Amino acid sequence: MAPKALDYDSLNENVKKVQYAVRGELYLRASELQKEGKKIIFTNVGNPHALGQKPLTFPRQVIALCQAPFLLDDPNVGLLFPADAIARAKHYLAMTSGGLGAYSDSRGMPGVRKEVANFIERRDGYPSDPEVIFLTDGASKGVMQILNTIIRGEGDGVLVPVPQYPLYSAAISLFGGSLVPYYLEETANWGLDVNQLRQSVAQAHSKGITVRAMVIINPGNPTGQCLSEANLREILHYCYQENLVLLGDEVYQQNIYQDERPFISARKVLMGMGPPVSKEVQLVSFHTVSKGYFGECGQRGGYFEMTNIPPKTVDEIYKVASVSLSPNVPAQIFMGLMVNPLKPGDLSYEQFIRESKGIIESLRRRARMMTDGFNSCKNVICNFTEGAMYSFPQIRLPPKAIEAAKKAGKVPDVFYCLKLLEATGISTVPGSGFGQKEGVFHLRTTILPAEEEMPEIMSSFKKFNDEFMEQYDDHSGYSRL
Amino acid sequence: MAPKALDYDSLNENVKKVQYAVRGELYLRASELQKEGKKIIFTNVGNPHALGQKPLTFPRQVIALCQAPFLLDDPNVGLLFPADAIARAKHYLAMTSGGLGAYSDSRGMPGVRKEVANFIERRDGYPSDPEVIFLTDGASKGVMQILNTIIRGEGDGVLVPVPQYPLYSAAISLFGGSLVPYYLEETANWGLDVNQLRQSVAQAHSKGITVRAMVIINPGNPTGQCLSEANLREILHYCYQENLVLLGDEVYQQNIYQDERPFISARKVLMGMGPPVSKEVQLVSFHTVSKGYFGECGQRGGYFEMTNIPPKTVDEIYKVASVSLSPNVPAQIFMGLMVNPLKPGDLSYEQFIRESKGIIESLRRRARMMTDGFNSCKNVICNFTEGAMYSFPQIRLPPKAIEAAKKAGKVPDVFYCLKLLEATGISTVPGSGFGQKEGVFHLRTTILPAEEEMPEIMSSFKKFNDEFMEQYDDHSGYSRL
Repeated sequence: MAPKALDYDSLNENVKKVQYAVRGELYLRASELQKEGKKIIFTNVGNPHALGQKPLTFPRQVIALCQAPFLLDDPNVGLLFPADAIARAKHYLAMTSGGLGAYSDSRGMPGVRKEVANFIERRDGYPSDPEVIFLTDGASKGVMQILNTIIRGEGDGVLVPVPQYPLYSAAISLFGGSLVPYYLEETANWGLDVNQLRQSVAQAHSKGITVRAMVIINPGNPTGQCLSEANLREILHYCYQENLVLLGDEVYQQNIYQDERPFISARKVLMGMGPPVSKEVQLVSFHTVSKGYFGECGQRGGYFEMTNIPPKTVDEIYKVASVSLSPNVPAQIFMGLMVNPLKPGDLSYEQFIRESKGIIESLRRRARMMTDGFNSCKNVICNFTEGAMYSFPQIRLPPKAIEAAKKAGKVPDVFYCLKLLEATGISTVPGSGFGQKEGVFHLRTTILPAEEEMPEIMSSFKKFNDEFMEQYDDHSGYSRL
Repeated sequence: MAPKALDYDSLNENVKKVQYAVRGELYLRASELQKEGKKIIFTNVGNPHALGQKPLTFPRQVIALCQAPFLLDDPNVGLLFPADAIARAKHYLAMTSGGLGAYSDSRGMPGVRKEVANFIERRDGYPSDPEVIFLTDGASKGVMQILNTIIRGEGDGVLVPVPQYPLYSAAISLFGGSLVPYYLEETANWGLDVNQLRQSVAQAHSKGITVRAMVIINPGNPTGQCLSEANLREILHYCYQENLVLLGDEVYQQNIYQDERPFISARKVLMGMGPPVSKEVQLVSFHTVSKGYFGECGQRGGYFEMTNIPPKTVDEIYKVASVSLSPNVPAQIFMGLMVNPLKPGDLSYEQFIRESKGIIESLRRRARMMTDGFNSCKNVICNFTEGAMYSFPQIRLPPKAIEAAKKAGKVPDVFYCLKLLEATGISTVPGSGFGQKEGVFHLRTTILPAEEEMPEIMSSFKKFNDEFMEQYDDHSGYSRL
């Protein structure tokens, strides 16, 4: 028989080129082990509810009522739902044209987009226009749509931080563009050096690639750093000089675990720079309901906001969004609830604050426990998680371990992570899945396991690691950095 | 300033090529008129809840409980929810790993995929494997993923029925492939003629295009016909001969308005053909929670099932699905509820049957009212809507109307539909948005307006149409077909 269109050899090569380690070999092996009955701690993906984080009560009450609007006419509704949840459900239902079962406008419900604009305005101190805010099925879908709009072929480059969240490399492969890496500096707490950008762009140029866009992830994934205002200003100035669209992945903006470097949005910094920069740099900023204290990953809600994007382009983006009809409506309402939270004096306010503060404060303690835990291990060093949800320790593999990995036909960090998984059930992602410098190895783990389980997880990690290092140590004086 | 990456002139040309009439000029004008206070009847998109269809009670009860699982511990829960909804909510929550706020596996929850497989097995009488069933955010997302996997460049052609639902033309443009039209025969109630397929493929071939896949929409959108078993057999045989992947868009399988030609799935016919055909033809079948008696468009739930697709290809499709992490979890549960409905004897069964039968029977009456209404109009002829949600009357525009349209710079059917909109508030989609033969004009309207409003809508349509025809009639003897 002749090859068929869905035989492997006949597939779109760009599809085959996609790599996505977060659910790659390690995840598949972990799933197998789980099926065999082994207890697996899934720290491969930032999925807080899967690791026991409870949903906030108020947003869930509102959504439950929106899904079952007939309850609003039930005389007993007040026995199960507080009055402010009932009022808020009515508020959102009034924005829909037929409840949660009807498609919304393809950009999302106008009422929710207005709430998002108000949130951005309060956060940044500059007006925001709901007409250039599009709601999406999670932030990833928005990122993919924007990259698809920009990339015309392999001559188009996108600057991506390395280590990076593999959504970017995957999407750039899928759309046939070229990833242009810029390295973050581990010894400077994963700082971004503009000279590094210049070098990367020059190198790309020498290969015939025109860099058209730049991605920043702030707070960083997997690296956990928060970009300073000065650093953001440098980046924006560079984008202005080089005519780059800036994609600001700011999905972790609520996940901040220190006070020295609070989150500041790229848009706020851009607006503060004044003309011509503030009028010229094209910026698309992304946010989600999946992270922060909501952590509502499974609902798939997100938005992007466009700054300095010409109306004709906005129309094109709207048109392509229309092909999938509309983002899911329940998650649009989650987005409304996230950006328009309860206020002091509201009936459910105390509970809401208790729950949300509890989540962020516990994550802050867990970030510290993990960093300290990793730094107590042999041949492991780890920057503190300033923000986001991840710890990204460097694992200094002894030459004998690297050799053993090669013999096993594995990339060295994959080898290490597989051994870790088999020994402890901890499912991580090898650093090579995020890109890293030659000969340097890391792993990424989320800081999401339950706080009470953290000491045991870290001690089981330490036991495995130190034995591994002992086993492969050549006792030649190679030692912890 | 140099052009920037998101300036219109710099965009990905494939994005600009996308056309999507369902939310095109007519929809935008209708939205404007609505803002100005005019009453608009949105029949441009199959969005039943937006036109007053009530959601089924039981699935909404289950989802509300899944969203607010803390209600399950409330002693008053039984006052608002029946016992079977409570039991079913527990059933689905037990399948999740952290409730609705956690990402599921990127293919969807294994438990729901098993329920889908059981449904297919009951429907078709052949075993179905959950491992090759992927849940998606609505059927459109699945169609787009499969087309993206198949299409490598403009030399790759996809056979698409004309008139067609513009998702297909839009996605093929976006992925840079070539649409190869095959015309449905209006005078044979939109039947499909295999000779027509052969001609289309030969014509494509002469232009250097290799046809790799074929789309069927059954029941048809916008044309409303149901394919017979004999016709499906011919199509599958043709796909076997020509080595084509068949994409079976079967989202309207519950929407059947006559008894002579019940829905029969492409997969059932394929399996019934026996080897070698049944073992060779690659088939991907699509379904959704947006249509049928659920009509839950806003939830964005769907699935695709793959038949005869090699495991290595399934792995690639899984990998790309992983980049967006997971389809939204609430809609996965809606899918479970749709494919695994209540059974006789269940507490809520009577209500469920009353509601779902009520919807389909009313649609059946509306299909008839619309067809008859259109056929009573001057210069309008319309096939009966055997299935799906649309009426697709042919509008025989007099030469003077075509001339007037040209003067106004409009495609003739767009001109007609805009006039209809301004005069009556009825928002339709011009036939040109679905592709049609040269010089032949149609419009698409859904059959979804509330049954009690239907007589008034049809009479306001007739008044507009007959006056329009009168106005442009040259009284030269040109008359109704």
